[in-house]
Amino acid sequence: MKEVREVAVIGVGMTKFGEHWEKGFRELVVEAGLKALVDAGIHGEQINAGYVGTMASGTLIGQEHIGALIADYMGLNPIPITRVEGACASGSLAFRQGIMAIASGMHDFVVVGGVEKMTDLGTTEVSTALGGAGDQEWELFLGVTFPGLYSLMACRHMYEFGTTEEMLASVAVKNHKHGSKNKYAQYQNEISMEDVLKSKMVADPLKILDCSPISDGAAAVVLAPLEVAESYTKKPIRILSTAQASDTIALHSRKTLTGLRSAQIASQEAYKKAKLTPKDIDFAEVHDCFTIAEIMAIEDLGFFKKGEGGIASLEGRTALGGEIPINTSGGLKACGHPVGATGVKQIVELSWQLRGEAEGRQVKDATIGLAHNVGGSGATTVINILKRE
Amino acid sequence: MKEVREVAVIGVGMTKFGEHWEKGFRELVVEAGLKALVDAGIHGEQINAGYVGTMASGTLIGQEHIGALIADYMGLNPIPITRVEGACASGSLAFRQGIMAIASGMHDFVVVGGVEKMTDLGTTEVSTALGGAGDQEWELFLGVTFPGLYSLMACRHMYEFGTTEEMLASVAVKNHKHGSKNKYAQYQNEISMEDVLKSKMVADPLKILDCSPISDGAAAVVLAPLEVAESYTKKPIRILSTAQASDTIALHSRKTLTGLRSAQIASQEAYKKAKLTPKDIDFAEVHDCFTIAEIMAIEDLGFFKKGEGGIASLEGRTALGGEIPINTSGGLKACGHPVGATGVKQIVELSWQLRGEAEGRQVKDATIGLAHNVGGSGATTVINILKRE
Repeated sequence: MKEVREVAVIGVGMTKFGEHWEKGFRELVVEAGLKALVDAGIHGEQINAGYVGTMASGTLIGQEHIGALIADYMGLNPIPITRVEGACASGSLAFRQGIMAIASGMHDFVVVGGVEKMTDLGTTEVSTALGGAGDQEWELFLGVTFPGLYSLMACRHMYEFGTTEEMLASVAVKNHKHGSKNKYAQYQNEISMEDVLKSKMVADPLKILDCSPISDGAAAVVLAPLEVAESYTKKPIRILSTAQASDTIALHSRKTLTGLRSAQIASQEAYKKAKLTPKDIDFAEVHDCFTIAEIMAIEDLGFFKKGEGGIASLEGRTALGGEIPINTSGGLKACGHPVGATGVKQIVELSWQLRGEAEGRQVKDATIGLAHNVGGSGATTVINILKRE
Repeated sequence: MKEVREVAVIGVGMTKFGEHWEKGFRELVVEAGLKALVDAGIHGEQINAGYVGTMASGTLIGQEHIGALIADYMGLNPIPITRVEGACASGSLAFRQGIMAIASGMHDFVVVGGVEKMTDLGTTEVSTALGGAGDQEWELFLGVTFPGLYSLMACRHMYEFGTTEEMLASVAVKNHKHGSKNKYAQYQNEISMEDVLKSKMVADPLKILDCSPISDGAAAVVLAPLEVAESYTKKPIRILSTAQASDTIALHSRKTLTGLRSAQIASQEAYKKAKLTPKDIDFAEVHDCFTIAEIMAIEDLGFFKKGEGGIASLEGRTALGGEIPINTSGGLKACGHPVGATGVKQIVELSWQLRGEAEGRQVKDATIGLAHNVGGSGATTVINILKRE
């Protein structure tokens, strides 16, 4: 097999995540995209192509054909921009296509965005739209929402490994603490274990503060061939590996509920391609759509043994200053989760950390970071490993 | 720039296009996908990745996360399958990503599908969903539907070049004649010029028989590196070039209404990459969502001078046996237009023609074919040029 051309991140940008009543879908994505171009010190005319991840714009804002919309509003006509969708992993999938576009030799400079505008509809309509990430015919149509699906996983994890509600809550407490140091985060307030445990029940044992919020926001990165990256930035971020795997879309078809097979397979592939082991990763952004998801993630990624993610979280081993800081951005829980944007935001946060630009939440000597982005209840997982050059 | 690894089509398959009351989205895409695998003589275990084009599944059937759904229902877990969306060009965009995946060296064998299930909703809901291909905020929300947008183009083309309603109608008559020779076509009945001219007005001058229908259907192809293609099929189809360009999403922002700038730019790039001119193309599948669209397409592609596409159509120069047969499949008009499937169906038809397997509609000595797939009112155009090896 022909060796792929290596690719680097040369610029990043994002909007604040949150409830943007004053901005539309177009404004959000243009803001993030322009920030990334400026950060890369590159002009629009130099960009050859673009990809954008967005999950449910058709349902949420009545707009499809998102690639063309963005090419137009970014002033990038006539370059090709293509929308990619894989539920909450849409952003990472767009990032992967950007890498392939450069690796294939078809394009040199590619902008990759992720965006979602979710607050234009009510909670019920948004939940229905998000239900499209699961198996509509066998899950949502029969009444299961996403908190319901993840509560099944949480219950089984508690039953098999003795994971407790306090362990779950500790993830939210930690991610809010991280988020309090991130000016782009939707929630910049710290919360206590008691706040989480006493918060409203959504789907037992998951309470409202175990759940990531509904958010608006966008993130973008500029990619270039590694060999020319240094002429654009003093701090190119090298993409060591990217991997993607799938699992059954419905939860009831799986052999286990205590981990995501797609995450295990994709991370093993990503480690192998990068010639690394979990011990080589300095920090990670993982997909904590619910607190149980972060606990499963740090196990699936090999940072902790299966069943030990809960106690590790409770003990602070995944906090800033701990042995492997997880979700320094605040994660989906505190930074927010505009679904299509999340995967790209993870790359933005990794890049800031690897450049040493993460301000009050900087991981010391951050050299290698990993992003773990999940679609639905785990039918898609994308893993990207990035390194400071 | 590193040279791309060349890619070939080694297997194709499709469902009949039409109103499939007896089949769901999943059944359609699995049927087409399995036919393509069987045609390629390849097992599912050999497939490394997949792409699928679908435009509006969220709105039409309440399902997103289509890549994962298909990986599951095709029995292809845990390989990555990714959904790509670009309105009616979604299928071609998926095809392009499949090419890039192989060209980049990341994957060797890739299955590409296109699918849409449109008849589960009423015409109004479907029209609203399709409106998402245009500029929702400035077009659909203000009352313009897609027939309305194309009627503006038709009116201007008639005004500038003297194109007549008979010339428009001749496209529909020809495509139904071609469709009558295609067992996969939604409409296999011939129609007369009088039938078209007397049919119900939709958006003056476009009548119902100037418009492509609402359809269900799926199509799929298997791609492989060119260097190994011959060990799988005696008739590999080489992809000479692929190109994609964008234009403003709203019609009112364009400098001209009588052609699509995206189609002109993408086709020029495709010709250049393939080192060909329009005269080298033996036949083409073009995006005749409305009869005027085919007339503009054959001009934008350089087969006829701007303004002469109408008379060329009326004179039969684009019919089977004419100088450049257009839409031997029946096109969107007669073969049907399940939007996400159309771009892939074009590749299936090109492959059948290039292999000499197009039965009663075979183009004599077909050596090089072109596919022209448009998203929305032209904000995206994808051009692919294929050659018999």
